[in-house]
Amino acid sequence: MTGHFIIAIDLGGTNLKCALLDGALKIKAKSSFNTRSFNSKQKLIDGLAGSVNSFISELHVSGSSILGIGIGLPGPVDSLKGIVHFLPNISGWRKVGLKKILEQRLGLPVFIDNDAKLMALAEHEAGSARGYGNVLCLTLGTGVGGGLFINNLLYRGVDNAAGEIGHVPLNEHGPVCGCGSQACLESYIGNSRIIRRARRLFGPDVRLEDVSRLAREKNRKALAFWDDVGKKLGLALSGAVNLLNLEAVVIGGGVAGAGYVLFKSVRRTILERAMSVQAKRVKVLKAALGNDAGMIGAGYLVRERLRK
Amino acid sequence: MTGHFIIAIDLGGTNLKCALLDGALKIKAKSSFNTRSFNSKQKLIDGLAGSVNSFISELHVSGSSILGIGIGLPGPVDSLKGIVHFLPNISGWRKVGLKKILEQRLGLPVFIDNDAKLMALAEHEAGSARGYGNVLCLTLGTGVGGGLFINNLLYRGVDNAAGEIGHVPLNEHGPVCGCGSQACLESYIGNSRIIRRARRLFGPDVRLEDVSRLAREKNRKALAFWDDVGKKLGLALSGAVNLLNLEAVVIGGGVAGAGYVLFKSVRRTILERAMSVQAKRVKVLKAALGNDAGMIGAGYLVRERLRK
Repeated sequence: MTGHFIIAIDLGGTNLKCALLDGALKIKAKSSFNTRSFNSKQKLIDGLAGSVNSFISELHVSGSSILGIGIGLPGPVDSLKGIVHFLPNISGWRKVGLKKILEQRLGLPVFIDNDAKLMALAEHEAGSARGYGNVLCLTLGTGVGGGLFINNLLYRGVDNAAGEIGHVPLNEHGPVCGCGSQACLESYIGNSRIIRRARRLFGPDVRLEDVSRLAREKNRKALAFWDDVGKKLGLALSGAVNLLNLEAVVIGGGVAGAGYVLFKSVRRTILERAMSVQAKRVKVLKAALGNDAGMIGAGYLVRERLRK
Repeated sequence: MTGHFIIAIDLGGTNLKCALLDGALKIKAKSSFNTRSFNSKQKLIDGLAGSVNSFISELHVSGSSILGIGIGLPGPVDSLKGIVHFLPNISGWRKVGLKKILEQRLGLPVFIDNDAKLMALAEHEAGSARGYGNVLCLTLGTGVGGGLFINNLLYRGVDNAAGEIGHVPLNEHGPVCGCGSQACLESYIGNSRIIRRARRLFGPDVRLEDVSRLAREKNRKALAFWDDVGKKLGLALSGAVNLLNLEAVVIGGGVAGAGYVLFKSVRRTILERAMSVQAKRVKVLKAALGNDAGMIGAGYLVRERLRK
């Protein structure tokens, strides 16, 4: 392949997704690597560098045709300084200058950011959030992440830590959350929490995709299951909507696949619990870019940073 | 008096405060009118116009020396269009073009806004929020209002309805709130709610100022009372802080007079419940301008709008 390309990476808990993007940020090739062995700081760094190198050599593109590498990571990132504050499940990871380390290993410009922020960037540039100035994009997965746009700009906050809708409390007291608090939205509807409930209801081998399919088939237990997830999500969003008078909320990630029943429950809860002006204003939309959003967002990040 | 002046008005549930501000927005004279009789749409409009006229004639300033009138109102306001969407306790009030009505009655430029937004504007221009780009200012009173600054600008949201921290839910289920929802912050710590609790604890004639004084005197029941108010407030702020990675939160209104015990409880709750990066960043500050904040903010509003 010839031309100029960007390599975009979305690092998740179970796999690392790689894409080769062209100048228009269209995906030209994809690959996926298992990340279960990336379980220490050094192994993760080696795994990231090794995955990029083997992806590049698979594709037969020259290093000189690659403008840069964008990486989305599941934790708090100082994107400008290129530092990852911490990563869940990687003990000993504390304020690692990942950008610099990978640039030295790979000989290419590297840009890093939080994965939910990159998903939001992609949805705002090319997906469902396009055209909305004030919009919150959420990803529902193991974690519940978010990216907030204010006046058409990704709002990072002073430590690039804004957008954490997953850690809005839903109750004064409730389940312990991975962040150290309790009763956060994520502690109720993170995938690892709802899968436990799904197994109690539907048997030990059920996957969340199965519960989504059952809901589409109008199974009553499955409908009630997603209705309840939607109520929890809608309650957290009611607070955000009252505080921010948002034009839209965009929901992505695997769980968004539950579809109509989930979105209906979120919308109804916002109408019940948010103030009328704010509730009537906000649109609740499904993310458009699916599993590719994180990689496309990483492409926008590289393009944005190289322009400066 | 000679020179150019602004008349600033802060309309509350029990009184209407009027101030004459000079060109530097310093208060030159103040007056207060009882608003208990302003209980219908027409009576409120007549009352506002009458109060302004009697304030002007008391002061012996000429109408031509008054640049404009700024008014803070306890409800959702479309500040640019000059429309008040609704007001609590004034039945039949629905989308009233108050700016135009008063301009015709008074023959002077009138600018209106939500009272909590004007308090926030004053604190950001001349009080505790000065110098903070991303900061939430709250007023604790009968209602719990807020004004949010993002990147140094008052963030209004698409309907000028942003900042409603008083209507962030604290629980899935809880006390009915005046906004029609339940378990909102305001439904726990609005003055009318906490005064009931105070009366049960301290007797039927107690005022909130008395409970504040008792807390300063280390009365254990009073300390526990404010500690609990601080926990509720801190929990709502933890969600806002996780979502917005704020540099500061500024707390004003009568209840803020409870002082150290309240602020300590808010800070401790944020450290317990918000994520570590966000919790360590945010400063919890007491508002500096006290009861005058709303009027000073109304002055800034007039000055800002006349410049355009």
